[in-house]
Amino acid sequence: MSHDPLVVFTPSGKRGRFPRGTPILTAARQLGVDLDSVCGGRGICSKCQITPAYGEFSKHGVTVAPDALSDWNAVEERYDSKRGLKKGRRLGCQATVQGDVVIDVPPESQVHRQVVRKEASARTLIMDPATHFYLVDVAEPDMHEPTGDLERLSRALREQWGIEEITADLPILARLQPLLRKGKWQVTVALHRDHRGGPAKLLELWPGFSEERLFGLAIDLGSTTIAAHLCDLRNGEVKASAGVMNPQIRFGEDLMSRVSYAMMNPGGDKEMTAAVRDAINDLTASISAEAGIEPRQILEAVFVCNPVMHHLLLGFDPVELGQAPFALVTSSSLSLDGRDLGLTAMNDTAQVYILPCIAGHVGADAAAVALAEQPGQSEDLVLIVDVGTNAEIQLGNTTRVLACSSPTGPAFEGAQISAGQRAAPGAIDRIEIDPVTKEPRFRVIGGDLWSDEDGFDAAIATTGITGICGSGIIEAVAEMRMAGLLDPSGLIGSAEQTGTPRCVPEGRTHSYLIHDASAEGGPRIAVTQGDIRAIQLAKSALYAGARLLMDEMGVDKVDRVVLAGAFGAHISPKHAMVLGMIPDAPLDKVTSAGNAAGTGARIALSSISARAEIERMVREIVKVETAIEPRFQEHFVSANAIPHATAPFPELKSIVTLPDISFNTGSGGDGGSGGRKRRRRVRG
Amino acid sequence: MSHDPLVVFTPSGKRGRFPRGTPILTAARQLGVDLDSVCGGRGICSKCQITPAYGEFSKHGVTVAPDALSDWNAVEERYDSKRGLKKGRRLGCQATVQGDVVIDVPPESQVHRQVVRKEASARTLIMDPATHFYLVDVAEPDMHEPTGDLERLSRALREQWGIEEITADLPILARLQPLLRKGKWQVTVALHRDHRGGPAKLLELWPGFSEERLFGLAIDLGSTTIAAHLCDLRNGEVKASAGVMNPQIRFGEDLMSRVSYAMMNPGGDKEMTAAVRDAINDLTASISAEAGIEPRQILEAVFVCNPVMHHLLLGFDPVELGQAPFALVTSSSLSLDGRDLGLTAMNDTAQVYILPCIAGHVGADAAAVALAEQPGQSEDLVLIVDVGTNAEIQLGNTTRVLACSSPTGPAFEGAQISAGQRAAPGAIDRIEIDPVTKEPRFRVIGGDLWSDEDGFDAAIATTGITGICGSGIIEAVAEMRMAGLLDPSGLIGSAEQTGTPRCVPEGRTHSYLIHDASAEGGPRIAVTQGDIRAIQLAKSALYAGARLLMDEMGVDKVDRVVLAGAFGAHISPKHAMVLGMIPDAPLDKVTSAGNAAGTGARIALSSISARAEIERMVREIVKVETAIEPRFQEHFVSANAIPHATAPFPELKSIVTLPDISFNTGSGGDGGSGGRKRRRRVRG
Repeated sequence: MSHDPLVVFTPSGKRGRFPRGTPILTAARQLGVDLDSVCGGRGICSKCQITPAYGEFSKHGVTVAPDALSDWNAVEERYDSKRGLKKGRRLGCQATVQGDVVIDVPPESQVHRQVVRKEASARTLIMDPATHFYLVDVAEPDMHEPTGDLERLSRALREQWGIEEITADLPILARLQPLLRKGKWQVTVALHRDHRGGPAKLLELWPGFSEERLFGLAIDLGSTTIAAHLCDLRNGEVKASAGVMNPQIRFGEDLMSRVSYAMMNPGGDKEMTAAVRDAINDLTASISAEAGIEPRQILEAVFVCNPVMHHLLLGFDPVELGQAPFALVTSSSLSLDGRDLGLTAMNDTAQVYILPCIAGHVGADAAAVALAEQPGQSEDLVLIVDVGTNAEIQLGNTTRVLACSSPTGPAFEGAQISAGQRAAPGAIDRIEIDPVTKEPRFRVIGGDLWSDEDGFDAAIATTGITGICGSGIIEAVAEMRMAGLLDPSGLIGSAEQTGTPRCVPEGRTHSYLIHDASAEGGPRIAVTQGDIRAIQLAKSALYAGARLLMDEMGVDKVDRVVLAGAFGAHISPKHAMVLGMIPDAPLDKVTSAGNAAGTGARIALSSISARAEIERMVREIVKVETAIEPRFQEHFVSANAIPHATAPFPELKSIVTLPDISFNTGSGGDGGSGGRKRRRRVRG
Repeated sequence: MSHDPLVVFTPSGKRGRFPRGTPILTAARQLGVDLDSVCGGRGICSKCQITPAYGEFSKHGVTVAPDALSDWNAVEERYDSKRGLKKGRRLGCQATVQGDVVIDVPPESQVHRQVVRKEASARTLIMDPATHFYLVDVAEPDMHEPTGDLERLSRALREQWGIEEITADLPILARLQPLLRKGKWQVTVALHRDHRGGPAKLLELWPGFSEERLFGLAIDLGSTTIAAHLCDLRNGEVKASAGVMNPQIRFGEDLMSRVSYAMMNPGGDKEMTAAVRDAINDLTASISAEAGIEPRQILEAVFVCNPVMHHLLLGFDPVELGQAPFALVTSSSLSLDGRDLGLTAMNDTAQVYILPCIAGHVGADAAAVALAEQPGQSEDLVLIVDVGTNAEIQLGNTTRVLACSSPTGPAFEGAQISAGQRAAPGAIDRIEIDPVTKEPRFRVIGGDLWSDEDGFDAAIATTGITGICGSGIIEAVAEMRMAGLLDPSGLIGSAEQTGTPRCVPEGRTHSYLIHDASAEGGPRIAVTQGDIRAIQLAKSALYAGARLLMDEMGVDKVDRVVLAGAFGAHISPKHAMVLGMIPDAPLDKVTSAGNAAGTGARIALSSISARAEIERMVREIVKVETAIEPRFQEHFVSANAIPHATAPFPELKSIVTLPDISFNTGSGGDGGSGGRKRRRRVRG
């Protein structure tokens, strides 16, 4: 039909015929090919670099002649001499179509480029940032047509970029005039699109053409730690990562004690809100310094957090989250101005996105895990457990996704454990018990050697051996079970029953002594019967939550298990399964996803499509309420045994043989009644 | 076609057939009849009161039987016994259709009720407030369907009121939960609609059914005075009015000196912004106290102001407004959160609307005048002059409207006048000069008597005679011209030339002595030749601006003149015309509109349709730039004579005969060169 030359773009495969002389950028735009440009074809930004391919392309049915594109022009010559153009590259806005041609768009010229994530992941991230650059020439003011500078900027964006409408808040309006004049009416603007639609928001502008890098913060606001990734908004790259303690700890170690603090102290919620906002401001400043950027280059932030942290960040009293029915103020995602959250360290126009909450105790952090791990995209049935003070559990595949939270309490974090401590230098984090000698060997955080290796004492000289952390206590209990020191009901045997003097009586029960430095004034680290009970409570809650989701799904087993959370990364899958924390599964199908919530935050920071996606996913996730489900209590009781009273755990049995023992002599003592004790529910 | 009864509503005339048993409120809604309801038909709010009419209505072709409506029901009985229902009234949500019926909707049951304005006005105001009340029953939280409180409120508004989408900012979200629970899940909410569309914004809520009155502030932010009207948002009624001095005066008396202050002092603009915001907060508190309301009942504010005040309110450096081409940061209207302007005294969710600016020196105040005076709706050609430090001038009729501003300077406000002062007690504001004796008589502000009347001295004992204000100096100059003390060129005659010893030499010129208390240590109040020159400059600028618009319109005369501005209210039309401040017009066609800008602010506060209207009007108004128009200077020079060098002023001549005199003896002196002096342009 047409004798115009054919232009074929790769890798998209999009093609069309264009009149001779059409710039490649124009052709790309008309075809909807993802070819970047900030200067809009002015030959300034070099973002639209393309690679023409010459010769015979039978696949495309095209033969590309050497003169298929126009010759290099002065703009390209100048750019190449000043900045250097990679061999074979052309500027898409300068090179024009002269004959049939195949044009490759290299990844760095794509706006929606694919980003390889370091984490094991269910999906690849395609960049789709909210904030984009545009170079515009703005009309000078004219007394005959007296419109404001904003109106002329707006018109320029409409005419030069097809952007229908923009809005601008007071802080950027206040610096609009000097910047337009400094740029002699040519400026680079950063516009922020909301994934829900509506006008683009003017966040910042720079005189002339700017190659300023813009950054965003992906913040995982945890009860204990605030972890932030500073990411380049153009390519998603992490420039710096940092974490600080959540200063709210001084108001209460766990979520429930913070809710209590707010209930008992008028204005207590406001104190906690101020504390966490201050900490985020400090973190913003320090992470910027570390990355060598100006904090005002930070134009976006994404938060993921549990519901209590969510409310305290937003300035909402969390009291309703402390009691059934755990009503959130709002479960929807939020798009806010950073300054409304008192985030004064970043740019004063910075935009904040907070992921939606799934339920009153399954928060935006769980939503972020779902975004990172995509249970709904999984062909096999995946159980995702985010282990922290509370456990958020998701179970799903392409048919549907279920979620619940389970009140594990802080035992997994080393709290409520006699020698427990946070995962910090000096803490025992790995332990093995010889099944024959019943002797332990261990490692401490900060040292690489096992305690029975040469040089161990020297290696830990600076840290000492101070206690046992969450992963250490899990391993210890599992090792004790495997070594025959602990029976399925969770009872520690006596020295006589176990054959090791390390089992020492303590009241009417026994403890297993790991390390005793009390003679030198150091700590005595033992696993007590009370510690076992605390771990049993925690793991039973976790297992019962998972089991409840399996009931809802109508299954007896899962195909794979993902342990998420910073803590999840340190749990040994074998020990977790010996303990019966998680349902039976092939050991190689139990993997760690690292800080999946933080990864989800980074994904949402890099892509507004991902924001729309998680909002849709959250609506589709079926929430299962553990607190009102009678079977939860049944599952909890059955899960009290180690690994379990009734579930067969065939996969576990295929790799580990657990001693079939019982230390219950019927002479009283603690008979494993943990499941019937009243537990204090810790939510969030 | 249908045998359903016919329902006819008056005054709208809307009619339709409805099944027996249909509540009148339902019928009204289906027909789009303006019948108010806050409780949505629950029989609580009584806003839907209607008056059924019985008998024969040939006009409507209906005979209404006595049983055309259902009998009083228990809800109506209870309401009547508790609160009293006016005779003949029914509750529209309770009374149901039983036969053909004519229903009158009384004004107080209409949302869009007509409001009678006290001011002479081109239009009637129809209420159409942005903020409305809705009573809703919200679903309680349910752990099986864990949505947030906001989401359930939103759903209730959708289901019970058809409101598709709402948004809520952090301050109201922070108090959402306790209020919903206090109201046992029934709340009255205030929703704010923006006239540009978009979701309604939740501003406030009250437990249960609330009859809280909501208020808005209409603020005329002038360079000298900040005037506020506190209005009831339901019916537009003014509950209190108050004014304070603009504290920015300490940074500069007029606009240009404030712009200079910002230019010369880094951070000076921010100081002035803080000062004016503080003053508005103080005014908010004091006007609330005066009206006996809580400041948090104030949910809206509308601002009108000149461009420099506009920028300083918004926190924009006004430097560009001090020089051609007088570029505004933005000329569009603004809808803002009050807290973004630091307006902390009113409700923390209060919404602010700022009218659009017409041009860089024709501000939102001029737009408000246009809204109040509707030149574009006038069949006859109307000239509207808003007289202040600057004059904003509009000329138009139904064909088109032109606008300009003219740099009159502060002489009309008593500044730059030897004995000038602000219009305050003690100032001479009226003066007459006997054409025969050349003796003056005058009145001062604070006293009702003329200076030659008995008891004058006693009447002014407390104020004294302190100076002469703007309207006083205008009258004085015009009276001097009529009495033959001043020639057309503006020269004051000597005692010999005029025949009165009150014309006293002062250097090479003469002054006319009005009042001399210098012997008693009091002031000596005279009109000097310099005063005449200052008034000539001001009035020439005003006239030239008006004349320029007439040129643009292609006319030599106007049909009527409206003097707006607080000052306009005090100018005597005859004296203004003798002076040649305004073009010749029939004296009875020169009227005062009072503070038309303030009226425009009130209109915009009461009606979002009016907001849409002024935004459309502003786009259609043709801006005429005096500064770049060569004819302005010509007109200015010709207008220097009193009343004018060339214009015939036939209407003026028909009522006043001005002495044909000249005091220019050719012996030097001031020959009326004011027009050729360089004037400092005062903008805004």
